Amino acid sequence: MVRELTLAIDAMGGDAGPEAIIRGAAIARRRHPKVHFLIFGDEAVLKPLLAKHRALAAHAEIRHAADVVRMTEKPSQVIRRGRNSSLWHTIDTVAQGNADVAVSAGNTGALMAVSRYCIGAAEGISRPAIAVLWPTIRGQSVVLDVGANAGCDAEQLVDFAVMGEAFARTIFGIERPTVGILNIGEEEIKGVETVKRAAQILRDSELPMEFHGFVEGNDIGAGVVDVVVTDGFTGNIALKTAEGTARLVVHYLRQSLTRSFFGRIGALFARGALRALARKLDPRSGGVFLGLNGLVVKCHGGTDAHGFASAVDLAVEMAESDMIARITADRSGIKLGAAGHGEPDAAHTAPKIQAAAS
Amino acid sequence: MVRELTLAIDAMGGDAGPEAIIRGAAIARRRHPKVHFLIFGDEAVLKPLLAKHRALAAHAEIRHAADVVRMTEKPSQVIRRGRNSSLWHTIDTVAQGNADVAVSAGNTGALMAVSRYCIGAAEGISRPAIAVLWPTIRGQSVVLDVGANAGCDAEQLVDFAVMGEAFARTIFGIERPTVGILNIGEEEIKGVETVKRAAQILRDSELPMEFHGFVEGNDIGAGVVDVVVTDGFTGNIALKTAEGTARLVVHYLRQSLTRSFFGRIGALFARGALRALARKLDPRSGGVFLGLNGLVVKCHGGTDAHGFASAVDLAVEMAESDMIARITADRSGIKLGAAGHGEPDAAHTAPKIQAAAS
Repeated sequence: MVRELTLAIDAMGGDAGPEAIIRGAAIARRRHPKVHFLIFGDEAVLKPLLAKHRALAAHAEIRHAADVVRMTEKPSQVIRRGRNSSLWHTIDTVAQGNADVAVSAGNTGALMAVSRYCIGAAEGISRPAIAVLWPTIRGQSVVLDVGANAGCDAEQLVDFAVMGEAFARTIFGIERPTVGILNIGEEEIKGVETVKRAAQILRDSELPMEFHGFVEGNDIGAGVVDVVVTDGFTGNIALKTAEGTARLVVHYLRQSLTRSFFGRIGALFARGALRALARKLDPRSGGVFLGLNGLVVKCHGGTDAHGFASAVDLAVEMAESDMIARITADRSGIKLGAAGHGEPDAAHTAPKIQAAAS
Repeated sequence: MVRELTLAIDAMGGDAGPEAIIRGAAIARRRHPKVHFLIFGDEAVLKPLLAKHRALAAHAEIRHAADVVRMTEKPSQVIRRGRNSSLWHTIDTVAQGNADVAVSAGNTGALMAVSRYCIGAAEGISRPAIAVLWPTIRGQSVVLDVGANAGCDAEQLVDFAVMGEAFARTIFGIERPTVGILNIGEEEIKGVETVKRAAQILRDSELPMEFHGFVEGNDIGAGVVDVVVTDGFTGNIALKTAEGTARLVVHYLRQSLTRSFFGRIGALFARGALRALARKLDPRSGGVFLGLNGLVVKCHGGTDAHGFASAVDLAVEMAESDMIARITADRSGIKLGAAGHGEPDAAHTAPKIQAAAS
């Protein structure tokens, strides 16, 4: 029997507006009949919207929040002045233990700042990260960090490896996901000391992790590893470059198809296939915040109802697993492995890891 | 009348072998009848290959080089032991003033190291960079650095902006190309001080440059600016991520088209359009080394004859323009602007730029 879950939903975040979010919750509700929804936002707006979805209304409560965090607001402003916002209340409900997981399509920076402030980081993790599910030729991979931390040291990358691996086990249901660190191919160039050191720590640790070593940018889409670890600056640029490239290829394709007579006929017949392609490339559930002492799913800001429903699916899956406990256990696993079994190199890494955890 | 040019060709670099390179030179020769080719490599291999292309043979000389630099060789090894290689001789010929531009499909790291060693950096440039022409929805943009320098400071990014702008003017023939620095969207995150400072220097300088400010990963493919500036680590990962994504989208497309009956009919009719798409996504001429005291074009290692011919086109275009003189003039332009016209911030940047140039 599946335990009943409570989801906190920020109904005011994202570009599509509360109507799309309520509709998304209604879609998700049909897939997860045991889930209870707490919906945060302007009651006057939400009440008539919820009334249109009876099945959802029977398992949902509206919790009034007067303010809305704008997509352009700075995280520090939100921390100072955002306490009456739907975003804050959604996260705080998880922090108080009144919901199992939060879902918001709102301002990413603000959502991370409020999550760190209200929920806090998991034991031993200095910096939470944002992970996404990246479509690959083999299926999907986890990529993190995609924007929470621009400047990362080696220990933080090691944390990301641990968190990403636990997430991949939960989401993909595989015993030993493979992990790679994003790097560039050229030899003997300067400035990649951080990734080299992170790789060394992972090699030396006695963590039961399938550490693959380095991967390059093209290996992400090829699905060479299950988990790709990088800092938030590089990860964010890689993610957005991939989005831009997918858009470019679809643009070329449309152009090529409409230029010739046969191309236009082909496009007509291939319509269904092209729609399936567009769906596959659609940014769906968005990101997951890893390394917090609670579960937060960030839905893509430009999402529609179906995208929001996918984010709820992911939230339910994470809440049903024991992910936070797994990350904490894995992380202490490195410390024991490195400090306990004392090969020279392994022992050498222990203080570094502990420094990161302090 | 176009001045006669001499091209130095490394016939032994790349995965496709000397036969493809000679064939590529023959194709390029038809497009540039005034160009003279110096072809470096194993004479015993090259002689019979060249004999097959009479028109090229009439305008080409083979220059024997006994050794070949392997694609996996480390740059430092090549500097120590590579003096008899075709790669070294090709570059050294440009350094000696016996050719106007070098083209090689060989080991990128080695090619850059030998270029810096033999040709040297242009006046005022501390670190040469590799620039590529990136296909966009609007046409093409210049992106640099894509792999020569992993750790860049703000002054180096400013150099890249100057070099990229001069290259864009030459190649695109536009008066004032727009320039953007690659960054991430999230506000108030740490670790992007370098890009912020580079942007500040460019804003404060009195360089006649259309500086757009920051761009994000998705803006590259959208063609938001003509020149995208980034460090070699991020640029290399962005470039390879884009290649991987293009491959992924084409894979999805093929899958979608073969899954349904109508999709298969559509694919049949759209064959020509799909081939045009594949051509557009093909990595073609490769990269250009900017900031050297001479011209070097790096052709993609996996190129075929047509790709090599495109690289020669680019080499000819660069040699016919006065690009190195332009970069040097532009760069001294910043120094004068910043130091001379003395607004407080502008004056403040001058020593930094000079430090980078020293």
